[in-house]
Amino acid sequence: MSRDQDFVTLGHGGGGLLTQRLIREHLVRLLPAGEAILNDAAALEVPGARLAFTTDSFVVTPRFFPGGDIGKLAVFGTVNDVAMRGGVPQWLSLSLVLEEGLPVAEVERIVASIQAACEQAQVQIVTGDTKVVERGAADGVYINTCGLGVIPDGINLAADQARPGDAVLVNGTIAEHGMAVLLAREELGISGDLVSDSAPVHRATRALIEELGPDVHVLRDPTRGGLAAVANEIAQASEVQIELDERSLPCREVVQGACELLGLDPLLVPSEGRFVAFVADQAKQRGLEVLQSQPGGAEAAIIGRVTEDTGGRVVLGTSAGTRRLVDLPSGEVLPRIC
Amino acid sequence: MSRDQDFVTLGHGGGGLLTQRLIREHLVRLLPAGEAILNDAAALEVPGARLAFTTDSFVVTPRFFPGGDIGKLAVFGTVNDVAMRGGVPQWLSLSLVLEEGLPVAEVERIVASIQAACEQAQVQIVTGDTKVVERGAADGVYINTCGLGVIPDGINLAADQARPGDAVLVNGTIAEHGMAVLLAREELGISGDLVSDSAPVHRATRALIEELGPDVHVLRDPTRGGLAAVANEIAQASEVQIELDERSLPCREVVQGACELLGLDPLLVPSEGRFVAFVADQAKQRGLEVLQSQPGGAEAAIIGRVTEDTGGRVVLGTSAGTRRLVDLPSGEVLPRIC
Repeated sequence: MSRDQDFVTLGHGGGGLLTQRLIREHLVRLLPAGEAILNDAAALEVPGARLAFTTDSFVVTPRFFPGGDIGKLAVFGTVNDVAMRGGVPQWLSLSLVLEEGLPVAEVERIVASIQAACEQAQVQIVTGDTKVVERGAADGVYINTCGLGVIPDGINLAADQARPGDAVLVNGTIAEHGMAVLLAREELGISGDLVSDSAPVHRATRALIEELGPDVHVLRDPTRGGLAAVANEIAQASEVQIELDERSLPCREVVQGACELLGLDPLLVPSEGRFVAFVADQAKQRGLEVLQSQPGGAEAAIIGRVTEDTGGRVVLGTSAGTRRLVDLPSGEVLPRIC
Repeated sequence: MSRDQDFVTLGHGGGGLLTQRLIREHLVRLLPAGEAILNDAAALEVPGARLAFTTDSFVVTPRFFPGGDIGKLAVFGTVNDVAMRGGVPQWLSLSLVLEEGLPVAEVERIVASIQAACEQAQVQIVTGDTKVVERGAADGVYINTCGLGVIPDGINLAADQARPGDAVLVNGTIAEHGMAVLLAREELGISGDLVSDSAPVHRATRALIEELGPDVHVLRDPTRGGLAAVANEIAQASEVQIELDERSLPCREVVQGACELLGLDPLLVPSEGRFVAFVADQAKQRGLEVLQSQPGGAEAAIIGRVTEDTGGRVVLGTSAGTRRLVDLPSGEVLPRIC
């Protein structure tokens, strides 16, 4: 083992190659053999029902940013992970790790935000836990939420279900959450009017599934590691090639501008209210109409297609007419963005 | 709001009065009206099944202590919370918050412990998450585990089900986990051969339920806040008085000695492999036999009884023949013990 790999680095949490390695080398043996490690939620069989079950810890900094806060992010992030497996999000757990000295008023503000987010998404927190650590042993507040929901009969969405010929759809403009949080960090010395896209997407996924049925193959939300990570994970799990078209990719100019300024690729920047859908080619127009008819869905688009495997790769056709490989982000891209 | 209440203190995480206040004043409104906030797990109805669902974050320091470590504690703590609601623990989520700079070998050691604990308890981790925060923004590693299990038909265990006449049983000696962790903190300058009692108890609760059926009314594990917190919570939720008998309370001499040395009341010190069972009076002898027949159950005992309400109080008949009120711990007793 090389020196670099002896210690945990921020890159291990970035959602890219180092995160995958940490999981594959150290954590994967904990998981059941049949369960793909890269799904947003597990699918579980209980007598009479199939459940989607997911966990996420939130360590975003700053805790409050344009368009959201750590509490809203936790609720919507977990709701969305249940939805990506086709589940109808219903119940959440809430676990807080608080730093000694945190103003109670700030806890109150976060709790109010969690409550409003639960009402908006129509989910219910049913179990909780609170721990306090000494001053300096945590950075204010960390939140863990687990999500639980029933998966309706006949739905089998997973990262390994993409098929050659599938179209790739996205429900709106990408990379706004990551850029909004980055710009909220004053140390960058730049500012903008960017707002996080943090939102629950389970109504949109539900509408898509109801309209397209088994023609929906994969749903994923491009959070940590952005669209690049998600596309690579699906390409590898499904053993297909994914070809994305840069010209079709909805991305606001202000986001593109900020990315250029900071030397970031929007494909690597997280969204928190967006998802990609891999659907059968014959269903793509109907799928697009469903996504565009959703609140905030005007910029939904068909952004690519799936072709035969050439090694689980992701290829981007650029605006300049060239083609380039899209790799998994390899190190620390955007630490503590969710 | 007084100055004292303006900031989060370690006492807010201690499992006693301040924790209850934090929950009642700031968090309870998140929970559904019917769900008692002080149960270890929520009970959820899905088509065809009833589920126990629980969450717990673990911030114990030191991470490795005689008889266990943070990984084992997380698995068994969550298994036990599912069992307290009568659920058969089956699935766990695992979320890690890692501090930059943590040796990967230590992650590996914790993961190995988690794996061994899952095998021992016969539960499966099915979904996970890993976040990394900068050096100094967490204290090594925090673990969140959620647990999920099916509650067999006809079982209705909850903190509000204790009835006058019930006997109170415990499955073994108390307070060993808390004292083992405390003594492992070198700053105390004392040492002992104490070992944490961390263990899964779901086989013992299952055996008890199978033998006694609906005569089992309440199960609770005395973790944070110890037996004092658990008894007070049950007395309040069930609107009964609980009378404990100090002479019957199994507690090793070495634990009693260490408690005296440190000025601690063993009733306030957590166990992590113990539970109290409130059972109908006519079933108490059979219940005791079941508990004593379990591995490590030789010291199971009947430690008290439930009487009519006099304000949700807990009374201890002492070895000296006197009676005293047992209050909820009021502040910081044992921070970061789990």
